[in-house]
Amino acid sequence: MIIIKLGGSVISDKKTPYSFNKDIVKGIAKEIAGFYPEEGFILVHGGGSFGHPNAKEYRIREGLTKDVKRKRIGFSKTHQAMLKLNDLIINVFLEEGLPAYSVSSSSIFLIEKGDIVYGELEILRKLLEKDFIPILFGDTAIALDKGIDILSGDQIVSYLAKMLKSSKVIFLMDVDGIYNKNPKGEDAKLIEELSSEEIEHLLKSSESSGIDVTGGIGNKLREALKISSYSEVYFINGKVRGNLTKALKGEKVGTRIKA
Amino acid sequence: MIIIKLGGSVISDKKTPYSFNKDIVKGIAKEIAGFYPEEGFILVHGGGSFGHPNAKEYRIREGLTKDVKRKRIGFSKTHQAMLKLNDLIINVFLEEGLPAYSVSSSSIFLIEKGDIVYGELEILRKLLEKDFIPILFGDTAIALDKGIDILSGDQIVSYLAKMLKSSKVIFLMDVDGIYNKNPKGEDAKLIEELSSEEIEHLLKSSESSGIDVTGGIGNKLREALKISSYSEVYFINGKVRGNLTKALKGEKVGTRIKA
Repeated sequence: MIIIKLGGSVISDKKTPYSFNKDIVKGIAKEIAGFYPEEGFILVHGGGSFGHPNAKEYRIREGLTKDVKRKRIGFSKTHQAMLKLNDLIINVFLEEGLPAYSVSSSSIFLIEKGDIVYGELEILRKLLEKDFIPILFGDTAIALDKGIDILSGDQIVSYLAKMLKSSKVIFLMDVDGIYNKNPKGEDAKLIEELSSEEIEHLLKSSESSGIDVTGGIGNKLREALKISSYSEVYFINGKVRGNLTKALKGEKVGTRIKA
Repeated sequence: MIIIKLGGSVISDKKTPYSFNKDIVKGIAKEIAGFYPEEGFILVHGGGSFGHPNAKEYRIREGLTKDVKRKRIGFSKTHQAMLKLNDLIINVFLEEGLPAYSVSSSSIFLIEKGDIVYGELEILRKLLEKDFIPILFGDTAIALDKGIDILSGDQIVSYLAKMLKSSKVIFLMDVDGIYNKNPKGEDAKLIEELSSEEIEHLLKSSESSGIDVTGGIGNKLREALKISSYSEVYFINGKVRGNLTKALKGEKVGTRIKA
């Protein structure tokens, strides 16, 4: 079984509220259709310009403190916004003949310090057995520490890879992979292969390497480190048609994490 | 904690696809707001003209047999239609200041012979602890016997009443309660109170009583029978403003099932 993370910046333009890159998602679905049902899939998508504005407006990450009534409302609104994005993705997959099925992350995960501490996976297992393609998403979640919090798609990917024993995990991003420096810089170079040791080194020496490991990439690398001992991991550009097929075939594309 | 079942025919006009009785739902939310947060609530709604047309078109109740590919697509489409109705209801509650939170029934229940055999309730418990109002719905569900099937809202209500120990269960319908004969008939009389023994008698002598116990009412009465030993049960007209308040206060309205 292969887990694919659809980065929020791939499927949505973060600068435009509620924008959806339908053509990109359609292309991704078509590439997956080339491997399904011989291969099983789980998809996890990020929030893009659906989840983030709500989460920010209601300060969900602060937890269930201060103006608790408004926080509860915002918690629910953020989830509903994510369900809207999820619905758009599900529909594209169904149009391509792929049996995507929505699973609400907040209905099955409890978190603490931003990470999953409890997951109810029985229904996911059954959906996979019956050749469905479950689609989960970064979501609001009940948190044992703060009451409520945000659960990122990357955390879900890492947890599912471990618990369901995926053979491959592919992160679709809006850049070509992991760079040795900030990819916006002129002398940044794509890293084609990374070993666990190299990731650890990168994370430790974030300042000298120039990679912003405190942000999303850092978190992704930390999760990749956890996953890489039992699953292949790729970081590829999800906006370039054909990349996903290459990663699915095991060809050279983006950044591959060596086990 | 009180469980309220919003019948599909109360919130939606079954004859008009995707119709939503917003004013009715708004009224119900306002009545609930008179008792929350002193009292905890779970809501479960039916499919109305959102779920049923899809479930019928794709013959979901047949299970995962014949034209399996199309069945899988229909299974997902039916769930997405239910999420749309759920979103409309959630929004009305949020507008009224009530922290409704969507929980996808198919993400937490496994069924067999149409009944729940496995339910993952940890997140529901946490949501209640934190004063959210979880809103679930009749849904498509993975079935141990048929592969896929439909899970009715009434089954969810009965399961949650048992597992979460509700103090009261209120079924909102589009008629005034349980009648001694088909309520469309001229000489039908509302039954104000029913004991367990009387329900058993009604179910056994369905022909002589004139009640259609093979349909929705029969199923509701069977579930009420299970619930009534540990929870108060009311059947009331959800379209009449003030009825819910009466039932919440324990006043005489509709049909009350005696424990």
